[in-house]
Amino acid sequence: MSRVVELIERKRDGGRLSADEIGELIQGYVRHEIPDYQLSAFLMAVVLRGMDARETSALTSSMVASGERLDLSRFGRVVDKHSTGGVGDKTTLVVAPLVAACGVRVAKMSGRGLGFSGGTLDKLEAIPGYRVDLSTTEFLAQLERIGVVVTGQTADLAPADGLIYGLRDATGTVPSIPLIASSIMSKKIAAGANAVLLDVKVGRGAFMKDLRTARALARAMVAIGRAAGLVVSCELTDMDQPLGFAVGNALEVDEAIATLRGQGPADLVKLSVLAGSQMLVHARAARTMAAAEARIRRALEDGSGLAKLRELAAAQGGDARVIDDPSRLARAKRTEALRAARTGYVKDLAADKIGIASVLLGAGRAKKGDPIDLTVGVVLRAKVGDRVERGEPYAEVHLGGRPDDTAALAMIADAFRWSGTRVLRRRLVLGHL
Amino acid sequence: MSRVVELIERKRDGGRLSADEIGELIQGYVRHEIPDYQLSAFLMAVVLRGMDARETSALTSSMVASGERLDLSRFGRVVDKHSTGGVGDKTTLVVAPLVAACGVRVAKMSGRGLGFSGGTLDKLEAIPGYRVDLSTTEFLAQLERIGVVVTGQTADLAPADGLIYGLRDATGTVPSIPLIASSIMSKKIAAGANAVLLDVKVGRGAFMKDLRTARALARAMVAIGRAAGLVVSCELTDMDQPLGFAVGNALEVDEAIATLRGQGPADLVKLSVLAGSQMLVHARAARTMAAAEARIRRALEDGSGLAKLRELAAAQGGDARVIDDPSRLARAKRTEALRAARTGYVKDLAADKIGIASVLLGAGRAKKGDPIDLTVGVVLRAKVGDRVERGEPYAEVHLGGRPDDTAALAMIADAFRWSGTRVLRRRLVLGHL
Repeated sequence: MSRVVELIERKRDGGRLSADEIGELIQGYVRHEIPDYQLSAFLMAVVLRGMDARETSALTSSMVASGERLDLSRFGRVVDKHSTGGVGDKTTLVVAPLVAACGVRVAKMSGRGLGFSGGTLDKLEAIPGYRVDLSTTEFLAQLERIGVVVTGQTADLAPADGLIYGLRDATGTVPSIPLIASSIMSKKIAAGANAVLLDVKVGRGAFMKDLRTARALARAMVAIGRAAGLVVSCELTDMDQPLGFAVGNALEVDEAIATLRGQGPADLVKLSVLAGSQMLVHARAARTMAAAEARIRRALEDGSGLAKLRELAAAQGGDARVIDDPSRLARAKRTEALRAARTGYVKDLAADKIGIASVLLGAGRAKKGDPIDLTVGVVLRAKVGDRVERGEPYAEVHLGGRPDDTAALAMIADAFRWSGTRVLRRRLVLGHL
Repeated sequence: MSRVVELIERKRDGGRLSADEIGELIQGYVRHEIPDYQLSAFLMAVVLRGMDARETSALTSSMVASGERLDLSRFGRVVDKHSTGGVGDKTTLVVAPLVAACGVRVAKMSGRGLGFSGGTLDKLEAIPGYRVDLSTTEFLAQLERIGVVVTGQTADLAPADGLIYGLRDATGTVPSIPLIASSIMSKKIAAGANAVLLDVKVGRGAFMKDLRTARALARAMVAIGRAAGLVVSCELTDMDQPLGFAVGNALEVDEAIATLRGQGPADLVKLSVLAGSQMLVHARAARTMAAAEARIRRALEDGSGLAKLRELAAAQGGDARVIDDPSRLARAKRTEALRAARTGYVKDLAADKIGIASVLLGAGRAKKGDPIDLTVGVVLRAKVGDRVERGEPYAEVHLGGRPDDTAALAMIADAFRWSGTRVLRRRLVLGHL
């Protein structure tokens, strides 16, 4: 029996593989010595049998080793953040400038949106001219010069992850904590920051629907990061309703700017301050969370966060004038308000439906590579617990005049559930690791 | 998400597929519309999640439908038998002629040996000139003329099974009751007999090591056969020690001939009579097992079984003279006797070790396509419970002068465990379904 079959069989039977054995599989696959059909059988065995922390770390390391790994050590502590994605999550646009304004370098490589999850790169492209394709040299130079960079992958980081992800997507082997955790962390590790704040989203608008699996993913990622010598922590936050009010690319940039002006939605402000503070602590720029929070709040209030966003936009070729005059952002052709049929409280607001509606409107992609419309989306006027008077708008929909607009409007209306009596607001932060 | 991924995911999550859905997968795979890597992920999900009886039947049907299916209906009841394979299992060589001598047509397509399991085709080729590659026309003509045929696959029966088996072999997805059962039964159904006697071997010399899994396989195969409208039953028989005394191709033909002369080992005679009787009942050539057994014993005693083997050998181009003069069978260069160091009883006789030793001697294949030596092997002189006097031989090894001969001799000696006091014989028949 071949060596590869032996390893597949061991995992199939619930056994463990050594770091060397996992390395053999991944290297063999990347070198085309191991065919797709063997790796996919192995991946299905992993989905159903799991991997322990050491195996998951070994898998991550072997994916990191498949490509370049950025060396940012000359900058001392450099921080990164990663969210598992959700609807309306524009936290990076707020936090990266805030943290950089506090003197801590932020090096972030982001991704594009897929399905109902938005992507930071798409959002940034709503700033006219903003480049998300920096070279490694540009990346390093900008990190040195202004202390913050948010771009797409500069180089061939963890190419094994890309190859394996493609195979997983085609073989029903996506939902596996060790596979998801190693996929995310391999790219984080290769991207070179030595401190990472993770944000695992939980709820209908997130990949992880329940707190138990979200916590398992958080634990797996933190373990991988620590095993790789990074400073890592992880927040578990609500994604059962969208984050903030705006969903859609230009609309979210608008909201991020407002937040940096001190006019942000409560949940987005809270999460940005929490994440930013944690990143300062990780970077040893503050000793305690309380001290860190004071600094982040100052950067929010004194305009230095906003100034850093302006600097970031300009550094990456963007039209920095939009930061001071968001009306320069492209706008949808038409808006339509959804109004309350009767006075009441929002009892429930389904993030997944809002996410799907935003894809229908053209703000997101059903599949990789689909074109998107940066202007369309939704601005919610009420979240769970908010009261809306009869006839008042609870959502403002920005429409591009697409065939699915009507379906999107119906879905947005359907995302809301109403109550005649008061409803508690949702807890935002569900856990910390 | 693609349809195929949806089906993989359903099985991954422990769900059920409809017959149409299983048909889509198998047909899509055979037509190269579904790539290896998707099917292998599906197969791993089946290994770990299982399939119920309806799914297993549907899988079998779709594999049958992938190729030709022989129509033997003009012959009325035609019987077939299948053993899951073991060490020294030459039952077909005895039973097929016996049953045919009782006037029941036996149409059997056999396979070659692999690993420690011997194969009927290899054994038959020890009869000089015996052809195992009959065409469909020859197959049908011989079945008509002499009522018995034992050959390799005549046509492209269940080609999906061959394709899928190759993929399973390379992806660690072999050990799965539904996959094994459907693989075996798809070929049986396609081969056209309408009554099948199955023999699932249990023990160290068999694929199924314990009675529980053997019973599960037996149940699955019987269910598939009945769902396909066949008359099926299944014996569960011991393969913890080899069957009969002879292991090795020409040596086993010799033993089969001796058995048809009334000089067979007790266990082989017992199993042959049981299997043959059951086949007569299935063919409605006898009303009761007792009546069937009387007829089979008569065919054993009156020489009509032996005559039918002579007829079979001649019909397929073999030198029928070996049937009357087995000394015409090719013999190994050299024999060596293993002698008892002290008087005692055989306490244990490991079929797997005897099987591996026979591969080392050259009688079997480590992998498909390896050449074999038809003359070499072992003739046991004692089985579990037998007493051997000090200095008397307990095994006679037929050697071809190969480098591994010494290792084989040591392994045969190691297969035996001894006791100073009496030991019970092993039960041969462990169950019936």
